Amino acid sequence: MPDIGFVNGRFMPLAEAVVSVEDRGFQFGDGVYEVIRTYGGRPFQLDAHLVRLERSAKAIDLPCPLSHAQWTERVTEGIRLAGYRECKVYIQLTRGPAPRDHLFPTGVSPTAVMTVRELHPLSDSLRSGVDTITLQDFRWGRCDVKSVSLLANVLARQLAKDAGAFEAIFIRNGEVTEGAVSNVMIVRRGVLMTAPEGERILSGVTRGLVLELARKEGLTVYERPVSEAELRGADEVFLTGTTVEVLPVNRIDGIAVGSGRPGPVANLLRERFRDLTA
Amino acid sequence: MPDIGFVNGRFMPLAEAVVSVEDRGFQFGDGVYEVIRTYGGRPFQLDAHLVRLERSAKAIDLPCPLSHAQWTERVTEGIRLAGYRECKVYIQLTRGPAPRDHLFPTGVSPTAVMTVRELHPLSDSLRSGVDTITLQDFRWGRCDVKSVSLLANVLARQLAKDAGAFEAIFIRNGEVTEGAVSNVMIVRRGVLMTAPEGERILSGVTRGLVLELARKEGLTVYERPVSEAELRGADEVFLTGTTVEVLPVNRIDGIAVGSGRPGPVANLLRERFRDLTA
Repeated sequence: MPDIGFVNGRFMPLAEAVVSVEDRGFQFGDGVYEVIRTYGGRPFQLDAHLVRLERSAKAIDLPCPLSHAQWTERVTEGIRLAGYRECKVYIQLTRGPAPRDHLFPTGVSPTAVMTVRELHPLSDSLRSGVDTITLQDFRWGRCDVKSVSLLANVLARQLAKDAGAFEAIFIRNGEVTEGAVSNVMIVRRGVLMTAPEGERILSGVTRGLVLELARKEGLTVYERPVSEAELRGADEVFLTGTTVEVLPVNRIDGIAVGSGRPGPVANLLRERFRDLTA
Repeated sequence: MPDIGFVNGRFMPLAEAVVSVEDRGFQFGDGVYEVIRTYGGRPFQLDAHLVRLERSAKAIDLPCPLSHAQWTERVTEGIRLAGYRECKVYIQLTRGPAPRDHLFPTGVSPTAVMTVRELHPLSDSLRSGVDTITLQDFRWGRCDVKSVSLLANVLARQLAKDAGAFEAIFIRNGEVTEGAVSNVMIVRRGVLMTAPEGERILSGVTRGLVLELARKEGLTVYERPVSEAELRGADEVFLTGTTVEVLPVNRIDGIAVGSGRPGPVANLLRERFRDLTA
């Protein structure tokens, strides 16, 4: 079978994968998720994604119905069943189906969902760098939790598209937090800077890998608040994420970043990241 | 049949009402909703709820698949099918099922869901007033949109319960916004005050009715920012909402409001509200 669904322990064609209209994921955005992609048919950084899933679940007091080992086994099985060359695996946990009430339901089992679809790599035109817009960060206060209450991110990404851009970069109290679907890094005078981990950003798996690569390359890396002025005055800006990998930003709000083309640090880290995934 | 489900035009037993795991409501909290209750078997303020549903949908660029008249007809039919003395009707619209991507999908029809369950009135113990806690408002910036990205509200209400309280009152930048599931009103020296409409609060249907009743009773009503100090120093505090109606607050963070018992303004407005619904 091609696109795969998995609901509470059972694999099925994706078209048959359904949940109750009273599932907490549907009525309250009361759940957490991960997106994992394969390279060479193997799930990349699966452990790191599963650790983060468990951390997100714990942050909202959501019990994990599958252990780390069980998820690993199911993800591997899902990829095998789908049979694509490269897959995008989506995992979601919710607090389960229950009569509608904000309070955590009792006596209800969490819902565990997985989908496996074919991975379509980013188009070549994006690889030469993207345009972005900035937005005041109007998301909630716990952006470190990878929750499915994503409406703010949805609206931000759509605003970017409507403006002819690829991504929206959030600014909160004058500081750069992250993008709607990516983390944001800047380079100024050879120094790489990005917002520190905490409640304002998602601790991106790719973010962590790229910072490690940068340090290995001898770059100075600061994880500290980045001001809006520093963003706008940067020599280079790039995005990191599971889908975008390392993606240079050419323009912010219509104004060129540095030369307006991918810079040396972004290009170097993109190469090194490619080596990791080869 | 007892509990009723309705999905995209078709009525069914609630247990059979399902949506795709790729529905935008489930994966992104990308939808809006309303809760309507009956009095004497008739939906109360149905028009006001449907107008707000349409406003919420418009705010997130979500087309309404049913007209006002069609919803009115379906809600009436759902209540009839359920056959309960009093019902709680839940309506939800989402951007529909689509392969996962933050961007609005194209060529997809929105999902329209309704559930009709028996209404269980608030317990008598609550009617003599409730305890509350305060929390920094960590929700997103568009609380005027009644969206299903509700995780912050869920966590807040649960924190209240864990503290032995009924509701959490949000404070943002030193000002009272609203509760996790209700609007908040205070009385000081006979003047009724509540946060003004805008992006920080939901324009509650009950809120509007109660303010109207208060003005009719000759009370001075200010819709203006209420400081945390004014909340804590209030003679009376009460909550309004579809489910809570007019509900006096006896304690905030363990400290008595006024006498620690329902005050004359809350009692008067509760009576007048009862008259409306009789």
